[in-house]
Amino acid sequence: MMTLEEQVLERIKPSPAEKEKLQEVASELLARVSTIARIKGIDGIIPKLVGSAARNTWISGTHDLDVFISFPESVSREELEENGLLIAREVARNGTNVEERYAEHPYLNMHYKGFDVDLVPCFAVESASEIKSAVDRTPFHNEFIKMSIPGREDDVLMMKQFMKGTGTYGSELRTQGFSGYLTELLIVHYGSFRNLIRNACTWKPGLVIDMLEHGTLRHEDPLVVIDPTDPKRNVAAALSLNRFAQFIDACRAYSDNPSEEFFFPKAKEPMSDDEIKDMLHSRGSSFVAVVFETPELVDDILYPQLDKMENSVRALLEDYEFQVLNSGYWANEQSIVVVELISSKLPSVKKHRGPPVWVTDHAKGFKTKYSNSNELFSMYIEDGVYVADIKRKFTTAKELLQERLQTCSLGKHLGKAVLESFTVLENNVILEIKDPDFRVFMRKWEQGK
Amino acid sequence: MMTLEEQVLERIKPSPAEKEKLQEVASELLARVSTIARIKGIDGIIPKLVGSAARNTWISGTHDLDVFISFPESVSREELEENGLLIAREVARNGTNVEERYAEHPYLNMHYKGFDVDLVPCFAVESASEIKSAVDRTPFHNEFIKMSIPGREDDVLMMKQFMKGTGTYGSELRTQGFSGYLTELLIVHYGSFRNLIRNACTWKPGLVIDMLEHGTLRHEDPLVVIDPTDPKRNVAAALSLNRFAQFIDACRAYSDNPSEEFFFPKAKEPMSDDEIKDMLHSRGSSFVAVVFETPELVDDILYPQLDKMENSVRALLEDYEFQVLNSGYWANEQSIVVVELISSKLPSVKKHRGPPVWVTDHAKGFKTKYSNSNELFSMYIEDGVYVADIKRKFTTAKELLQERLQTCSLGKHLGKAVLESFTVLENNVILEIKDPDFRVFMRKWEQGK
Repeated sequence: MMTLEEQVLERIKPSPAEKEKLQEVASELLARVSTIARIKGIDGIIPKLVGSAARNTWISGTHDLDVFISFPESVSREELEENGLLIAREVARNGTNVEERYAEHPYLNMHYKGFDVDLVPCFAVESASEIKSAVDRTPFHNEFIKMSIPGREDDVLMMKQFMKGTGTYGSELRTQGFSGYLTELLIVHYGSFRNLIRNACTWKPGLVIDMLEHGTLRHEDPLVVIDPTDPKRNVAAALSLNRFAQFIDACRAYSDNPSEEFFFPKAKEPMSDDEIKDMLHSRGSSFVAVVFETPELVDDILYPQLDKMENSVRALLEDYEFQVLNSGYWANEQSIVVVELISSKLPSVKKHRGPPVWVTDHAKGFKTKYSNSNELFSMYIEDGVYVADIKRKFTTAKELLQERLQTCSLGKHLGKAVLESFTVLENNVILEIKDPDFRVFMRKWEQGK
Repeated sequence: MMTLEEQVLERIKPSPAEKEKLQEVASELLARVSTIARIKGIDGIIPKLVGSAARNTWISGTHDLDVFISFPESVSREELEENGLLIAREVARNGTNVEERYAEHPYLNMHYKGFDVDLVPCFAVESASEIKSAVDRTPFHNEFIKMSIPGREDDVLMMKQFMKGTGTYGSELRTQGFSGYLTELLIVHYGSFRNLIRNACTWKPGLVIDMLEHGTLRHEDPLVVIDPTDPKRNVAAALSLNRFAQFIDACRAYSDNPSEEFFFPKAKEPMSDDEIKDMLHSRGSSFVAVVFETPELVDDILYPQLDKMENSVRALLEDYEFQVLNSGYWANEQSIVVVELISSKLPSVKKHRGPPVWVTDHAKGFKTKYSNSNELFSMYIEDGVYVADIKRKFTTAKELLQERLQTCSLGKHLGKAVLESFTVLENNVILEIKDPDFRVFMRKWEQGK
């Protein structure tokens, strides 16, 4: 009988045929880069396959190829961009869906023979600490892993799948989880899938892993893994505290009760109208949703702004004494920030504390301002301080959001989108949103059950 | 034309006839004490008239006589109590409503020819710092005021009336305001009614008045007035911060806009059913009232316990996440603690924060406890900490008070009363309480308007 881990591996390890196919396409692309460079008279360039494809740490079915076009350090930045793109565009003549993209430098992305291919110009610097651009680091990572990973590729595959299944894989700003390189380094450090799982059960924030004992800086991140190729860099800098905690939690749960579900969780069903109604009714709290058109943005810009907006919405509500229980956001064509409140209604009366009676000037100002106001219910002294019970400006969360959301700090692009138009839905009215993926998102309010 | 102060004085200053009557009755009582002591063969006692009657600082219509029966220091405590009461009882043979009362020592109270008379045995000690019992201090206060007040009696009268009118007069535990002696000392220190008013406008907590510059201790009270007859004692020790602040506020308001109303405020009308309904409706908050039979207690025991109970009720409600706006208590045959809440209802769901994920033992305990509980709505990680959204135990303030009030710390006598029986009234049901004095108390929620 196969063990659980063998069963998982069987599903995610590329077959010899799949590997051969990848090897073939990769070799073809590398050769084309060399040939074109020669034809165009561009000297000193070296094409390199990097990333998981080069390291044998890719999961069956993922068809990503990262082809780096490495230039000598003597070349200028402008020349690199110009000649790099010249070669890339020529290579891409046989590809489809070709797109010029920008990170620190421009690069090309294309579909080619069933693969998602990046063609990335970079500098061949002496060491990773002398890089001119973030991409220059990748070849060093590649070398380190190719040197240290042989024999543990399967452990990397299983760990990547475990992280995917538990929602902790991916270092982009939307996820803030573990990158591929970080996962590989953790396997190198702990030796195996099982040993990493076992050790992570007792991880604490502040953990530092410095395999070469060459780290030179103090990092404040929850997990610090010093880059073996660059002593100043924390490879885990993008990992959030919550993703870190979630991984520890998942490792513990898996240790206690291992199952395939950690690797291949069941897809969540969208919540039906009745399920949402039941959820609202049984919790007894109030839900408000801010809905607007999602502007055209890449995820690494959209999601941080949604995050900022969620925080601004919570802060606005709390400023006006609405008590927030939970919140979250979701985006597709529409973006939606959902907030759960103790109550979306507050009484008319609001307690407004003034200065102590003996701070004469302020006290007189406060008394004068409120005693003749028709906003006043009553004024009295409590603990030596004037208190005015006055009329509350906003007695419903909906009203408050409609009147004040546009004055909040919302991030450049979302601020603009909200300024154009947004709506606020309350409780059962949220059922108007039918998008199945949103209905899956709403399961957040039952997660862990 | 008479000034405002002259008008006030005319209403509160005893007429020559009223003074003569008081003098006559006082002399008669003092003579009777001497005669009886002689007849009984009790040597060395000196009868003394003390208090405002002796100092000419009593307000017309108040008919209190404090007759002290002073014994030599050589007499034993038992002898003083025995012979003191013997004389007092004999004097009281001509009185009505005679009652034996207890402070530190027993004393007699009676009605006699229209006066409320206390007959109090005490020791004639050498100085106020050598007293054997609190009452021994009174003759010293009497001497100091009789020496220093002549010419300023009218100022004392006006100040006492001002304090009565503004609710700051009286040092008993129910009021925690200014005592008669404290008022007299303040007039001695500031020289006049007007000058005290003017100075009090800029009083701050921490003010120390030490006329003889002989104070020896540090006091933490808001106002410190060192007793001219005892350097260790703060005469204003019973004054609460709120009463102190209220007096400053009243002095400022009077300075800005003097009127007879400060001395003789209009009696407050009981709130009608409609007025209470309107008040509840316009504030939009929730009111709960805890009602029970008032046990037979003197005010100095009842009111501190009501105070304690008010605080316990607030703390109980806040422990269970009900947000308290205001509260108060009232007592007659029934005692009632009234609390105003943001809402007397809370949603079913309650956010329960657990340990950080990395505190392994606690984390496991928390997860095990809640993940299999049918009290659980959802469990998740927030800021690295486990959070369980669980079912709230009490979703209404009424239910909570009914189930848990008897387990609160309520003071000996009220605890017993509440253990026997109490009811909780909510919002409009409070209208069932018809007592006019309670209906006046409810104006607290409009005071200062």
